[in-house]
Amino acid sequence: MAQPIECKAAIAWGPNKPLEVVTVTIDPPGPEEVRVKISATALCHTDAYTLGGQDPEGLFPCVLGHEAAGVVESVGPGVTSVAPGDHVIPCYQAFCAECKFCSSGKTNLCGSVRAWTGKGVMKSDSKPRISYQGQPIYHFMGTSTFAEYAVVHEVSVAKVNPSAPLDKICLLGCGVATGLGAVANTAKVETGATAAVFGVGTVGLAVIDGLRLAGASRIVAVDTNPGKFPNALKWGATECVDPKDHDKPIQQVIVDATDGGVDYSFDCTGNVNVMRAALECCHKGWGESVIIGVAASGQEISTRPFQLVTGRVWRGTAFGGYKSRVDVPALVERYLKGEFKVDEYITHHFKLEQINEAFDLLHGGDCLRAVIDM
Amino acid sequence: MAQPIECKAAIAWGPNKPLEVVTVTIDPPGPEEVRVKISATALCHTDAYTLGGQDPEGLFPCVLGHEAAGVVESVGPGVTSVAPGDHVIPCYQAFCAECKFCSSGKTNLCGSVRAWTGKGVMKSDSKPRISYQGQPIYHFMGTSTFAEYAVVHEVSVAKVNPSAPLDKICLLGCGVATGLGAVANTAKVETGATAAVFGVGTVGLAVIDGLRLAGASRIVAVDTNPGKFPNALKWGATECVDPKDHDKPIQQVIVDATDGGVDYSFDCTGNVNVMRAALECCHKGWGESVIIGVAASGQEISTRPFQLVTGRVWRGTAFGGYKSRVDVPALVERYLKGEFKVDEYITHHFKLEQINEAFDLLHGGDCLRAVIDM
Repeated sequence: MAQPIECKAAIAWGPNKPLEVVTVTIDPPGPEEVRVKISATALCHTDAYTLGGQDPEGLFPCVLGHEAAGVVESVGPGVTSVAPGDHVIPCYQAFCAECKFCSSGKTNLCGSVRAWTGKGVMKSDSKPRISYQGQPIYHFMGTSTFAEYAVVHEVSVAKVNPSAPLDKICLLGCGVATGLGAVANTAKVETGATAAVFGVGTVGLAVIDGLRLAGASRIVAVDTNPGKFPNALKWGATECVDPKDHDKPIQQVIVDATDGGVDYSFDCTGNVNVMRAALECCHKGWGESVIIGVAASGQEISTRPFQLVTGRVWRGTAFGGYKSRVDVPALVERYLKGEFKVDEYITHHFKLEQINEAFDLLHGGDCLRAVIDM
Repeated sequence: MAQPIECKAAIAWGPNKPLEVVTVTIDPPGPEEVRVKISATALCHTDAYTLGGQDPEGLFPCVLGHEAAGVVESVGPGVTSVAPGDHVIPCYQAFCAECKFCSSGKTNLCGSVRAWTGKGVMKSDSKPRISYQGQPIYHFMGTSTFAEYAVVHEVSVAKVNPSAPLDKICLLGCGVATGLGAVANTAKVETGATAAVFGVGTVGLAVIDGLRLAGASRIVAVDTNPGKFPNALKWGATECVDPKDHDKPIQQVIVDATDGGVDYSFDCTGNVNVMRAALECCHKGWGESVIIGVAASGQEISTRPFQLVTGRVWRGTAFGGYKSRVDVPALVERYLKGEFKVDEYITHHFKLEQINEAFDLLHGGDCLRAVIDM
C-alpha cells in the first residue's frame, strides 16, 4: 500500500509572488490515479501566465508545472494501463476514450476529469493530493510537475518508450507537441502550402518544424524581436519579417509579399491584435488561421465579418489536437527516429531551487526552454 | 450585329432615394459578354443594403438587382458557351474555371471579373453598358437585373434547363442557393447533426431546408419575430426560440437546451452581435459557425479567443460556396425533381413600376420573396 511521500515542491502562494521551494506531502494515489516521480519538467509560458494572475481559472496556493516526464512510482486502485516503473508523460489534456468528446472522434478535449482539474483537485474525492504543513495545496492543470512527485489521473498519463530521455521528451507534454499538432491536426497543412507564423518562441518554432515536415513551400516567420530570426531560419522558415520594419500593417505586408496572402497562419503570441493580423494575412477564398496562444483574461479578438464571408476560416487549437494518451507515445517514437527537433529547444538547465531564476529567464527572450532536472 | 436596346430599368440615383423607372439604353454585348432579356427578378436584402447606403462599394447612379432569370438575347464576340434563346440565370458570382481562385478547387470566389464588377463596369473596356439620356449608369454586382435587359460577362451566366419556370428559378440566383449551399458546401453538415439557424427570412429558411436534406436531427430556428415560426416549422425546424422570451443570452439558452451546444450554426441576419451568439452556441470541441449575413460597413465581429482554442470554428460563405456556372444548372435540375423548396418563398408579385412598393414590403417582415415579372 502506497504511503504519503515527503518531497520538494515549488509552491505558488499567489499571483506574482516568487515560488517557494519547500517540503510538501504528496498523498498516495486514489482510485484511478497514478503517482509519478518527476524526472524533468520544463517551464512554459502558461505557467508564467497563471503565476502572473492573468488566468481566470488560476487558484492559489498551488504547484504549477505541466510539461514534464517521469516514472510511475505507485498506482491507485483500479489502475490497469500503467504500473510502477513505467515511463510516462503527464498530460494536462486527458484522453479517456469514452466521454462524449473522446468518442466523437472530432476533438482531443476530453471531458472526463476537466471539471476537477479546473478546480485544482482530483476526481475521486474532489480533494488535492498535495499539502504543506497540513494545508491543502491545489493542483494545476491536473499535472503540478514543479515537484519531485505528482499525483495525476490515470487518463492523464501517456506511457512512453523507456529508451527515450526523460529530460528531453518532457517537452512533448506541451509546447513542442502543440506546435507540431497545430500544423498536422488542426490546420492539416498540405505539401506546397504557404504559411505565416507569428511569434517565434518554442511553440512558433515547433510550428515551423511542423510546416517543414508538411512540405510547406513558404514559411514566413514574424516576430518583433529579430534576435529570434536565426533560429527561425535554422528551424525551416524561408523568410523572416519584423513588423517594426514596415509602415503598413503586417497583414498587408504579408498579403503583398505572398500574392494575396498565405494558405495558413498561426498565432503563437497570445496577443489578440496579432491574432487578427494572422487571420487577415490569409488568402481570400481558403486561408485558415489557427490561434494557439492564450490571451489574457477578458481580451477579445475581432475582425470584419467580410474576412470570413470571403472564405477565410478562424480556428484554434489546444495541445495541437493530439489525443494525449494515444498520440504522445507515438510522438516519442517519432522523436527517437529524429523526425523533428526536441533537444534543440532546451537552452537552459536548472535545479528546482533555481525555479524563480528560470521564470525570470523565460521573460527575457533568449530562453526557449529551461528544463528543471529533479 | 446587335444594336442598342431602349427598355425600362429602375435607376437608383443615390442612397435611400426611391428608384425611378425610366427608359434606358442597353448597349450591345462587348467581347465575352452576353445580353439577357430578364424574365423575372426578385428583390434581395443585399439590394436594400446597397440602396440604404451601407455598402462601402456601392456606386450611384446604378441599376440594382441580382436575383433573376432570363433568356439570352444576343452575345458578343468570342462568346461560345451560350447562344440567343438559351435560358440563363445571371450570377453575381462568376466562374471562369481558369483563374487562381477557380483552379484552386477550394473556393467559389472567381477572380476573373471581380475587379470590374466591383466598379460597376464591364471588363473589356471598363465602361458600363447602361445609359440614361447619354449619362452612364453603373452596373451592380455584375448583374443589374432591375431592367428588361442586362449585359453580363459570359463567365457570369449559368445556362439552365429551359423547362424550368424562369419566374421561380430566379431565386436560385442568390438567396435560396446561398442557404442550401451554406449547409452542403461550407458547413458540410452530416446526418444526425444538430444545428441552430439565426434569422428566419428566405436565406434562413433555405438553410433549414438544406439541414432537412442533410438529415440534421435537431434544427433550432431563432428569430425575434415569432410570426416567422410557422414557416420555420413548415420548412423543417424542430423547434423555435425567441431570444426575447429568455433572460439568459441566447447562446446560453441554446447551449443549455442542446447538451453543450449545436454542431453547426448559421447567421442569416447580418447583425454582428447575432454572429457572436451563433458562434458561442456551438459545441465545444467541434461546433462550426457559418456567417451568411452581410454586416453594415465598418461593423466587426468579436469573441474571446478561448471560444476558438476550445475547438469552435468560425467560417463564412458567399453564394453558399456554389460555383455558379457549374452548380446553378445542377440546382435547377434538382428543383425540377422537387428536392427542395423554391416556389414557396414567393409571397408577392409586382411589376417593375411597383418596385418601390416591393422594397417597402421587404422591410416589413411578411414578405419572403417579391418577384418582379418583366
